[in-house]
Amino acid sequence: MKKEENFSEWYNEVVEEAGLTDKRYPVKGMNVWPAYGWKIMRYIDSFIRQELDATGHDEVCFPLLIPETEFKKEKDHIKGFDEEVYWVTHAGLNPLDVQLVIRPTSETSMYPMFALWVRSHGDLPLKVYQIVNTFRYETKQTRAFIRVREIHFFESHTCHVDEADAQRQVEEDFVILEQIMKRLSLPYLLLKRTEWDKFPGAHYTVGIDTYIPSGRSLQLGSIHHYRENFSRPFDIKYEDPDGDQKYVHQTTFGMSERLLGAVVGVHGDDRGLVLPPDIAPVQAIVIPIIAKGNREEITANARQLRDELKDFGIRVQIDESDERPGAKFYKWELKGVPLRLELGGRDIKKGVVSFARRDTGEKGTMLRSNIAKDVEAMLLKISKDMRAKAQQLMDSSVTTIESLDNIPKKWVRFGWCGSEECGQKIEETADIKILGTPYSGEKFHGKCLACGQETDIVVYAARAM
Amino acid sequence: MKKEENFSEWYNEVVEEAGLTDKRYPVKGMNVWPAYGWKIMRYIDSFIRQELDATGHDEVCFPLLIPETEFKKEKDHIKGFDEEVYWVTHAGLNPLDVQLVIRPTSETSMYPMFALWVRSHGDLPLKVYQIVNTFRYETKQTRAFIRVREIHFFESHTCHVDEADAQRQVEEDFVILEQIMKRLSLPYLLLKRTEWDKFPGAHYTVGIDTYIPSGRSLQLGSIHHYRENFSRPFDIKYEDPDGDQKYVHQTTFGMSERLLGAVVGVHGDDRGLVLPPDIAPVQAIVIPIIAKGNREEITANARQLRDELKDFGIRVQIDESDERPGAKFYKWELKGVPLRLELGGRDIKKGVVSFARRDTGEKGTMLRSNIAKDVEAMLLKISKDMRAKAQQLMDSSVTTIESLDNIPKKWVRFGWCGSEECGQKIEETADIKILGTPYSGEKFHGKCLACGQETDIVVYAARAM
Repeated sequence: MKKEENFSEWYNEVVEEAGLTDKRYPVKGMNVWPAYGWKIMRYIDSFIRQELDATGHDEVCFPLLIPETEFKKEKDHIKGFDEEVYWVTHAGLNPLDVQLVIRPTSETSMYPMFALWVRSHGDLPLKVYQIVNTFRYETKQTRAFIRVREIHFFESHTCHVDEADAQRQVEEDFVILEQIMKRLSLPYLLLKRTEWDKFPGAHYTVGIDTYIPSGRSLQLGSIHHYRENFSRPFDIKYEDPDGDQKYVHQTTFGMSERLLGAVVGVHGDDRGLVLPPDIAPVQAIVIPIIAKGNREEITANARQLRDELKDFGIRVQIDESDERPGAKFYKWELKGVPLRLELGGRDIKKGVVSFARRDTGEKGTMLRSNIAKDVEAMLLKISKDMRAKAQQLMDSSVTTIESLDNIPKKWVRFGWCGSEECGQKIEETADIKILGTPYSGEKFHGKCLACGQETDIVVYAARAM
Repeated sequence: MKKEENFSEWYNEVVEEAGLTDKRYPVKGMNVWPAYGWKIMRYIDSFIRQELDATGHDEVCFPLLIPETEFKKEKDHIKGFDEEVYWVTHAGLNPLDVQLVIRPTSETSMYPMFALWVRSHGDLPLKVYQIVNTFRYETKQTRAFIRVREIHFFESHTCHVDEADAQRQVEEDFVILEQIMKRLSLPYLLLKRTEWDKFPGAHYTVGIDTYIPSGRSLQLGSIHHYRENFSRPFDIKYEDPDGDQKYVHQTTFGMSERLLGAVVGVHGDDRGLVLPPDIAPVQAIVIPIIAKGNREEITANARQLRDELKDFGIRVQIDESDERPGAKFYKWELKGVPLRLELGGRDIKKGVVSFARRDTGEKGTMLRSNIAKDVEAMLLKISKDMRAKAQQLMDSSVTTIESLDNIPKKWVRFGWCGSEECGQKIEETADIKILGTPYSGEKFHGKCLACGQETDIVVYAARAM
């Protein structure tokens, strides 16, 4: 498994060998979540829930199936999903009167209900989210977590009195996002998508993109401002304090199991998975190093160590199997366990525990007497170091270019006059995808790569994964 | 809302007014989980997870869609579900080569994978579970949580070396079940279903039935022993220590959102929901009783009380809205909050907090100085009392009958010779459903209600909800 030589092959191998997914299910792109992968995904979900709950969002759960009539209410929206949805046409032995779409996203299942829920300005803002399965009929080559047909998905949907309040929600989403990404040690850019690439039905879309070491970009999610684009066809109105009926302004924020795909792709190495401590089902693995005649002593000590760490709140396991230490190291490294603790006769004599960090390979010893606090501090440090390293790699992989010749196979950054014609011309000529303009703004002055006109607009572009 | 006068109407009103469900979604039988109902369901899920994890089950997540070819592998199984499944026939604008079934249950999605996962006796027992959405095309009148088309479902699936080990799993499931039902304060009977009523494909089925005060029975879930009925068509084999290939023996255990329906139906009263404390999103509601001139003092005291209870781990809220106390009482009673705490000027002077129990209506005072411990003890007592009351009602609602005339409209118990002919005759004549024979056995001697033959077999029967 060589990540640098063939990223794609490496990725496909790691996700299966580490036990994150099983791709042998008899429908392509619909994969099984085995225990280990599902546990990690559930940790990610728990951080999403924590942040959404803390910002006053209510968790709800809407039906999976959407009547064709509702699905077709917003014209751009349905146009965007026309070729990607699964249709339920029969129930039992009979055809359905109204065919049902399996949700690709939940605007059209939620908004008919929002129209019933929102009555007056007192009902606003309405902030809900759900974590559910969604479906898209991918025709491209599928890839675990990255491009699948059944997608584990988080989506929040909000309604506001006006555009400014919806805009404040978008800003809150950025704060939420940062908290979640910290847990995953993932760097990212917030890039406002071009008009021809925004979400079907959106006023504007901000993409959340991360850098994959193969040189490509991976969209982890997006945040949309809908203005009144959906509230008009779905008739979501409220009575303002003056008694006037107004349409709500809406936003959504969505992310998927791609977060896990990014964790694999960004942090993993030739030995397998490297998990950020916050989402590691096993944060520290204790390996007893047995020598002749000391099995009982070592085992007792190792179990005591395990118990001490467990009581301190660290997710720790002990590997007492009969394999040799080398085989155990290999196994737990593949699974991405952030910290390995070894305990042998010499360690006990010296009053220490030997450790090895999964992310850097660094080895050393910790004092036995202060072990729980030291392990906790080390896990925190690993989390920070992993992010810093990934951030540094992402930052150094962006090249500002001034011509379309010899474009590096990483991320590029260049001037653009802002016209759709020039944008699409650049995309076609260079075979790259414009990700968008930095949401927070970036000082720039240069020339449009297509027409040569002077411009202050800078865009990022990459080959999408 | 009169539960005794018209149970069905009462139930339909309570589930919506208390905020458990919204039935206005434009597909009948596919309901929206609003925040309050979903929170309660998630508490129930968390107890299921806790018990399943503690008994060595791994949580997994399998795809929703099952290829027709897999779905049809076990003949009885598909016969049983033929008229109840939704079919996905198209993706995008094109028909699918292999049509897909939306899972009604997951045997046929899991077992092709089990055939890959199980290789040797060392892989056994295999114990997994998932909590997912499943679908059945109900043609009868739908009812929230009880008979719906999209079902929030828990299912565990296990593989074992032989029939005896699978049997041990069934016994473990009973222990797990009891732990969960304690949390919900629900009594139940374990009744072994008749041959003509067992799960399609099962060797035997044990139904988990509870008594609904309308006189009907409600099946909350079931536990199946499959023997080799599925492992043969799905080819799930292992190599035993002697090198022989053997088929695994399988079991499943499934329960659904009906658990919440039962909580509503069993515990609720004319004032609305009555929630067992373990699944109440708000376990105690603090109502400040404001009089002229003491708003600040009372509010400060009430907040302090709230904080103290919160720190102690009790889910508590304070209602500081401008409504009158009576309106607040009404609202929180409807939502089923187990304990109401009132704090007024007189309470503060006396050093007490006034309380009202939701389940019994009992009122009294607790010493302010020991409030957190007293509230905790009271919640525990409420939980136990609620179960005892429901158990008592269930027990007293079973009548042993000796003839088919004037059958009471509750549960009945009678002798049966064991023949299918007699069983079906009794069901038709009396328009009742035989639930089955007590799994744990019950001493009985009497005559078969149909043929009059002497028998030791006793069965329970009821009108199903």
